[in-house]
Amino acid sequence: MAIERNSLMPPNIDFAEAVANNFAQQPVMTLIGARLAHVEPGIVEIELPFRADLTQQDGFLHAGVITTVADSAAGYAAFTLMPAGSRVLSIEFKVNLLRPARGELFVARAEVIKFGRTLSVVRADVFATRKNSEKKLVATMQGTMMCLR
Amino acid sequence: MAIERNSLMPPNIDFAEAVANNFAQQPVMTLIGARLAHVEPGIVEIELPFRADLTQQDGFLHAGVITTVADSAAGYAAFTLMPAGSRVLSIEFKVNLLRPARGELFVARAEVIKFGRTLSVVRADVFATRKNSEKKLVATMQGTMMCLR
Amino acid sequence: MAIERNSLMPPNIDFAEAVANNFAQQPVMTLIGARLAHVEPGIVEIELPFRADLTQQDGFLHAGVITTVADSAAGYAAFTLMPAGSRVLSIEFKVNLLRPARGELFVARAEVIKFGRTLSVVRADVFATRKNSEKKLVATMQGTMMCLR
Amino acid sequence: MAIERNSLMPPNIDFAEAVANNFAQQPVMTLIGARLAHVEPGIVEIELPFRADLTQQDGFLHAGVITTVADSAAGYAAFTLMPAGSRVLSIEFKVNLLRPARGELFVARAEVIKFGRTLSVVRADVFATRKNSEKKLVATMQGTMMCLR
Repeated sequence: MAIERNSLMPPNIDFAEAVANNFAQQPVMTLIGARLAHVEPGIVEIELPFRADLTQQDGFLHAGVITTVADSAAGYAAFTLMPAGSRVLSIEFKVNLLRPARGELFVARAEVIKFGRTLSVVRADVFATRKNSEKKLVATMQGTMMCLR
Repeated sequence: MAIERNSLMPPNIDFAEAVANNFAQQPVMTLIGARLAHVEPGIVEIELPFRADLTQQDGFLHAGVITTVADSAAGYAAFTLMPAGSRVLSIEFKVNLLRPARGELFVARAEVIKFGRTLSVVRADVFATRKNSEKKLVATMQGTMMCLR
Repeated sequence: MAIERNSLMPPNIDFAEAVANNFAQQPVMTLIGARLAHVEPGIVEIELPFRADLTQQDGFLHAGVITTVADSAAGYAAFTLMPAGSRVLSIEFKVNLLRPARGELFVARAEVIKFGRTLSVVRADVFATRKNSEKKLVATMQGTMMCLR
Repeated sequence: MAIERNSLMPPNIDFAEAVANNFAQQPVMTLIGARLAHVEPGIVEIELPFRADLTQQDGFLHAGVITTVADSAAGYAAFTLMPAGSRVLSIEFKVNLLRPARGELFVARAEVIKFGRTLSVVRADVFATRKNSEKKLVATMQGTMMCLR
């Protein structure tokens, strides 16, 4: 269920620059090595290369690290549709962990399901890619993002 | 709603050592500077001192970092009640973010609500403490942990 | 984690009457036979006697029926703290089903965890009582309620 | 994100009949007037015509009633992929309410996102249709269903 077409005209024509600037101001993205990979109205992707210091006891990416990139992607997906000068805030999210997060590169892809003036609902899927293997969905998030003007 | 009394006899008498050993094997805990603060049957606390490199764009702790400590505390709270040799896996969690995560020290306190042979439901509250200020609840998590034998 | 003490002065002194009036206007409560059992600032209980026509295929109360009373209790718990003339709206909720919902009487007890001008976070526990048996927690909900003025 | 292709061979060739039989044994479906509308491997739809006695105080379908059809659709979507003789159990679900549930007919469409031997993750969207109006997404659920053999 993708966002309705009529929501796709972002009121902030500089939405991509606004996302990139905001992303650059998140120190935790630097700490974990995440990078902004794709921005379009209502959709944002963040990539995270595997690193051993991001893992839990079994050598898989920690669920909290997965959540970190999924939540940021979700916030920015909503942010692309907000007026210039807005701030975005995570209200809540729910994450289902579908498979052990093993792989070389993780991609969190977030998409706005319902955009609202104050609250937006966003879904984010996190995929793992491995050499000689298909892309696998390792986690999926459903959350609510708030616009502060 | 705390766990029922009759669940409080952990089958693994070395539960505290098992948690400490497992915690020491989570590289991401070292990366973010988290430490195990308290372990009892069905309850675990993890502390996280504030660090600027853990923040999002407004200078508050990133929701994903809060989730990282809450999820680990939740997993270990369930783990204290599992038989020796078990592994614990996060199935899903839901986090409500209640206040901006500002403070000097954050404590994630997780408690098992319902222990089951395979699935356990755990709640985790994350508190922020600041000098000359009351402890504040900044986030609360409700999640499901799985026991693998 | 109960609501902070200073939130406990409801701005609407007729909060209990407001809840009772609103409850009386919910046709679905009549359909399923639910009744308002307790109202105090930040806390509401709704009771639901067992009825065979509320069950799923195994003879237990359907998870959706449990959710119906938990959600209404949660909404009213937030509503007790809202200004007179407000409307309350469920934004989202998450329910963990802990045990088969068998029993003679079910009680959904909701408590505000964090009250906010616009959004409040509420927890609701649903208990089942049976003759000659302890009260059992069968489900727990964590959700967000919105105030419309 | 749909289910992977290789999960689409249901081990129970009578899956559609199994769903229909099970649905017929849910008294609450009769109470609210819901009907099974579509069954295929990994996907189930349940329809619910509007009725005034299913509403909350503003005349919209109660969030708990929406959840009732979404949860049943989700459970059956997982059930289509389970071996003959299995039972299905809802473990947890999270619902975001996107718009007031007004309309003449509601359709809950559930799809398995990840099928597992024990646990499956399912998404369910609930749409409202009104005369002379587009179909609208009013709620979306993400949940976990368990297979009991």
